[in-house]
Amino acid sequence: MLPVAVDAMGGDNAPAEIVTGARRAASELGIPVVLVGRSAEFGDTGGLEVIEASEVIAMDAEPGTSVRRMRDSSLVRAAGAVREGRASAMVSAGNTGAAMASALLRLGRIRGISRPAIAIPVPVPHSTHTTLLDAGANAECRPEWLVEFAQMGCIYARDRFKIERPRVGLLSIGEEAGKGNKFVKDCFELLDRPAWAASSGAEWIGNVEGRDVMTDDVDVVVTDGFTGNVTLKTLEGAMSALLGRLLSAIDTDAQSRRAGELLAGPLDSMVAELHPDSTGGALLLGVKGVCVISHGSSGADAMTNAVRVAAEMVEVKMVEHLLAAAHQQ
Amino acid sequence: MLPVAVDAMGGDNAPAEIVTGARRAASELGIPVVLVGRSAEFGDTGGLEVIEASEVIAMDAEPGTSVRRMRDSSLVRAAGAVREGRASAMVSAGNTGAAMASALLRLGRIRGISRPAIAIPVPVPHSTHTTLLDAGANAECRPEWLVEFAQMGCIYARDRFKIERPRVGLLSIGEEAGKGNKFVKDCFELLDRPAWAASSGAEWIGNVEGRDVMTDDVDVVVTDGFTGNVTLKTLEGAMSALLGRLLSAIDTDAQSRRAGELLAGPLDSMVAELHPDSTGGALLLGVKGVCVISHGSSGADAMTNAVRVAAEMVEVKMVEHLLAAAHQQ
Repeated sequence: MLPVAVDAMGGDNAPAEIVTGARRAASELGIPVVLVGRSAEFGDTGGLEVIEASEVIAMDAEPGTSVRRMRDSSLVRAAGAVREGRASAMVSAGNTGAAMASALLRLGRIRGISRPAIAIPVPVPHSTHTTLLDAGANAECRPEWLVEFAQMGCIYARDRFKIERPRVGLLSIGEEAGKGNKFVKDCFELLDRPAWAASSGAEWIGNVEGRDVMTDDVDVVVTDGFTGNVTLKTLEGAMSALLGRLLSAIDTDAQSRRAGELLAGPLDSMVAELHPDSTGGALLLGVKGVCVISHGSSGADAMTNAVRVAAEMVEVKMVEHLLAAAHQQ
Repeated sequence: MLPVAVDAMGGDNAPAEIVTGARRAASELGIPVVLVGRSAEFGDTGGLEVIEASEVIAMDAEPGTSVRRMRDSSLVRAAGAVREGRASAMVSAGNTGAAMASALLRLGRIRGISRPAIAIPVPVPHSTHTTLLDAGANAECRPEWLVEFAQMGCIYARDRFKIERPRVGLLSIGEEAGKGNKFVKDCFELLDRPAWAASSGAEWIGNVEGRDVMTDDVDVVVTDGFTGNVTLKTLEGAMSALLGRLLSAIDTDAQSRRAGELLAGPLDSMVAELHPDSTGGALLLGVKGVCVISHGSSGADAMTNAVRVAAEMVEVKMVEHLLAAAHQQ
């Protein structure tokens, strides 16, 4: 396999944690990695291959302008490496908008897909992740795009989580067909037609609600990028608030601290299962290449997972499946 | 104080749990209560006053039609009792849409408020609740309504949580002014004008994200009823998934079960702090009366809390404050 191109300069903890995570992916998982960025700042790379890039797109930079102007940025170079056949996939914990723009610029959009979408795997206790998309690529959507999101989400759920016939739901505020705002009702009408589900091998289950996302009742949840991003961040906030509250509960007094020690193992498993760092980041679906976008706060573990997921998606030929499905339409 | 009218027939656990909760509010908190519904089904009411109502609006009934046709339903009668000056407030765990329609029909809308909104107190660990509105009354909103929601949310946060100068944020997908979809950008422009905040005694803090809702960084989060309802239900789902996962973590083996016993106290406090039943339900703001809408799954404890909140909002004269603010405009 060609190496996974890691944007070593992207994210709040770049480059140190990013390089550490990439090194671990190489040494522990045997995944070939190429680091992209200012190698002088990398520290010990453990002998990983490097692609030099002199510029860094800041986390809060305007994506379109930055990507157009900073052709020697680590992000644009990482995407370029995939385009030029030097890398099999790109991974970045940097500016999300700039990562999308770089991927669009260098990898290009799959013909038949109107807009790429960000797919997020949401952890579900004791079960397979639920795929949520669009989690923020398109703040404004047209109803027909959600049908494309549904189709891409099915391919992703099948390739990543081995779900043969993914159950697809539309995020709304009631389960009945008539619930939601006008946009959602228009989406429902399109998604309720049997053709797309038949050709995607999906099971269309109609509207789902926010409370269904973290359950085993649905595999793929489609929504516009605004609602999806609010949902994602609400989940992250709830997770963080509850885990924080739990930590204080096991630090109430000597007795609770003793109990906390006894529980260390099960609680660690719980956090590992639910923490965003374990999911390996978001995938940008709809571009001609594997593009993993990790949380800006990613540490080394999150980065190792992101590289692992990128490599898995290359091996399982997800992009080829997306291309084949789009060309069928 | 006039009694709080409790729709004894509304909710998944009506009438048994509703009556139990109402009795407790009366006996333990000393709040006068009148039960509305089919008294023959109430069981022992402990001597509470009763208003007979022969009809029940089903949880899944179409709100508008039901309320227009079922004038002798417990919901319409409960709202009627407030209108006629027989009750000080109404509380229902029944059909949310029908509760709103009953309140609009019988209590009427406050002049100057375009649309009533549902305000939900979201628990924040170790801090005051964040008020989220609209949590579902209006799936489709106009930007100017969100300014009214912000104004009403401030009065509620001040009256309920004693926050002198509530920090108000607009739910979006990035903190910068330009983030969000067109609707949110239009809302931002209106909310960013200083006049409303000055007259409301609010501190406008700009955009907030889903992850801020459960933090101490904001007091009132305004959004359209679609996004608000998705956010609310996502929080409920996350809470339920995480607490469920935690229960299984303390039931892994003998050692974890022992730890769970040691932790019973702190964990009970944690659940009590975060469980939706503790918050006392949603308030419908913008109608001329106190209207508390509880979760359909409310048990006796949730109902006791709902009656308590209703009585508090009457005592603190929240509706008078809303009326005064609306007439200032």
